[in-house]
Amino acid sequence: MERRSPHIGKPIRCKAAVCRGSAEELEIEEVEVAPPKAWEVRIKIICTSLCRTDITIWQMKGPGFYPRIFGHEAAGVVESVGEHVEEVKEGDFVVPVFLPNCGECMDCKSEKSNICCRFPTQVQPGMRDGTSRITDSKGKIVYNFLNVSSFSEYTVVDINNIVKIDSDIPPEKACLLSGGVSAGIGAAWKVAEVTPGSTVAIFGLGAVGLAVAEGARLRGASRIIGVDKIPEKFEIGMNLGLTDYINPADCGDKPVSEVIMEMTNGGADFCFECLGLDSVMKAAFASSRQGWGQTIIVGLEMYGSPIIVHSGAILRGKTMKGAWFGGLKPKSDIPLLVKRYMDKELNLDEFITQELEFKYINRAFELLLQGKSVRCIIWMDK
Amino acid sequence: MERRSPHIGKPIRCKAAVCRGSAEELEIEEVEVAPPKAWEVRIKIICTSLCRTDITIWQMKGPGFYPRIFGHEAAGVVESVGEHVEEVKEGDFVVPVFLPNCGECMDCKSEKSNICCRFPTQVQPGMRDGTSRITDSKGKIVYNFLNVSSFSEYTVVDINNIVKIDSDIPPEKACLLSGGVSAGIGAAWKVAEVTPGSTVAIFGLGAVGLAVAEGARLRGASRIIGVDKIPEKFEIGMNLGLTDYINPADCGDKPVSEVIMEMTNGGADFCFECLGLDSVMKAAFASSRQGWGQTIIVGLEMYGSPIIVHSGAILRGKTMKGAWFGGLKPKSDIPLLVKRYMDKELNLDEFITQELEFKYINRAFELLLQGKSVRCIIWMDK
Repeated sequence: MERRSPHIGKPIRCKAAVCRGSAEELEIEEVEVAPPKAWEVRIKIICTSLCRTDITIWQMKGPGFYPRIFGHEAAGVVESVGEHVEEVKEGDFVVPVFLPNCGECMDCKSEKSNICCRFPTQVQPGMRDGTSRITDSKGKIVYNFLNVSSFSEYTVVDINNIVKIDSDIPPEKACLLSGGVSAGIGAAWKVAEVTPGSTVAIFGLGAVGLAVAEGARLRGASRIIGVDKIPEKFEIGMNLGLTDYINPADCGDKPVSEVIMEMTNGGADFCFECLGLDSVMKAAFASSRQGWGQTIIVGLEMYGSPIIVHSGAILRGKTMKGAWFGGLKPKSDIPLLVKRYMDKELNLDEFITQELEFKYINRAFELLLQGKSVRCIIWMDK
Repeated sequence: MERRSPHIGKPIRCKAAVCRGSAEELEIEEVEVAPPKAWEVRIKIICTSLCRTDITIWQMKGPGFYPRIFGHEAAGVVESVGEHVEEVKEGDFVVPVFLPNCGECMDCKSEKSNICCRFPTQVQPGMRDGTSRITDSKGKIVYNFLNVSSFSEYTVVDINNIVKIDSDIPPEKACLLSGGVSAGIGAAWKVAEVTPGSTVAIFGLGAVGLAVAEGARLRGASRIIGVDKIPEKFEIGMNLGLTDYINPADCGDKPVSEVIMEMTNGGADFCFECLGLDSVMKAAFASSRQGWGQTIIVGLEMYGSPIIVHSGAILRGKTMKGAWFGGLKPKSDIPLLVKRYMDKELNLDEFITQELEFKYINRAFELLLQGKSVRCIIWMDK
């Protein structure tokens, strides 16, 4: 006999880590999660992880949308579904993804794009109708974040942002694939299409940069150079395909691009910017080889500064591309990555540097800010 | 019996259009063209044409390298060859090209690059040994331009800059293929790899921009939009594949990129900047479709201004590429274009807007500066 959720059609009271103001510590509070409306799915979060993007928005000065529930990387189980949802059902193992994938628009149907043009990535802090499904104990609205809000025992997500996956993959590994790790692998695989035997330079060895290394290794790159100020990142990266490491602090007055030019005899075939700093984007572009070098911009510039490129340089056969969620279409490509993990081709274990109980979630913020964490898995039930 | 040049090993006295100072009128003078040294070829120019690049350098303020002979688009016949030259012989029909193609370096051997790394495009005004082969009637050195200096009855060119072609093609058509027209066709063909049924926007309808239209037509683009302030350019372009025309002067306060977004339902698949202005590069990028839009930078920014791109825009699946001589390898690709012309697939006739005798060469400068010329063929023997 099918075991059905006792909450179907009703609100669920549960714990969530609510943030009440810019850069304020999260508070574990009781919230109420309304049942899913049409085209929505309510999921029980098993585990979630903190990404640099959560911190960037959390740190932004100004009023913002508070109270708010952050978090967009997670794995969970479908608790109930709203009207018109046929793609998943109660009990399905799923990951939520910030990037919508309607499957029907011109972009979703095209092989070239992963930027759904029917449902743009939500900058507004609500569901597709503009409202939120979560309220606090006083009945006040709690804003959504990046279509997901996973720092909660339950959350409601649009069906366009839900990917059903093989339940054999451990939830903490699935959680990684719902965000930055997929974005990095995809940048190497689908955006750059890294070629066997090629040279790769990666600027910034956070989870995304390390995932680019893993993606480049899977694509057969022969030399994968990581650039980061924290040497411990290289220790982790060596198990993910990194072959060389440059600490800019060790280069003296020499620009990193010059060091890479020397190491690669004229520049790397593929350069990835995974930090989100205009100066680093410039360095990545300068490190790419004339004739065919590609620079892949993976990170949003964190201060809104533009990328500055000289026409004389790009004219020498160079290319600059942007990689939004690694060019991946969530619904079709994440299951492929799950399969590669299950087939023991893809290494995900190295990305998990800490695991914490939900009540210690603020510690995850500290660890990431101190550069001590790649991904910290936060378990909801522990 | 073979008819050999009576000048082999000796200097040739001939007429050349010498420029004696920045932006000064050219003077037809008698010059002496030394015999070719090792790896060099002396050619008799049949016809030449004026390109915007000649004018850009000619207009540059400052001392420059004067006296100098401009001109880099031409067709001619080999008069004699220097030591080690086996690729061409006396009497061969050839075009000189500013871009070296040694055929042996890593770039020349790679399918991906056309930027010869053994012999960079000459910014220095001489042959590979740094000297010039031309002197004026007082024995003073006359500087070379872009490896070619074709505004002369005879010139000496490095074998890396010589392409032997089928002599059945009329010289004025071959002349076009030695420069900007090939660069434009190549930008559509080899750099953008324009796809059948796609939408294309071309900013600047000079010879290069019009050649992009012709290249896009050959690749099967369904909509080719030209942007230019001179409506007559559209008349010419209609025979080269242009389907639509935008005059920015007719758009009022509306940015051209918005007009293109509306015309193409979200942006063009391929946008080409063929003017060399940072503001236009920005407009081209803004006109490209999110998800897969490519912006191809074909022109060097004429004031040295950088290209400014926001990471948030490029992250939406956009690409920016540079096209140096249209990504063409002169020695292998120009003969392919010659064949396509001979096979009546490629339209070159429309590019020739005027023909002049050599002595009226300054008129070609006026016509191009007034926007009245696409290509003016200058005949040496007339």
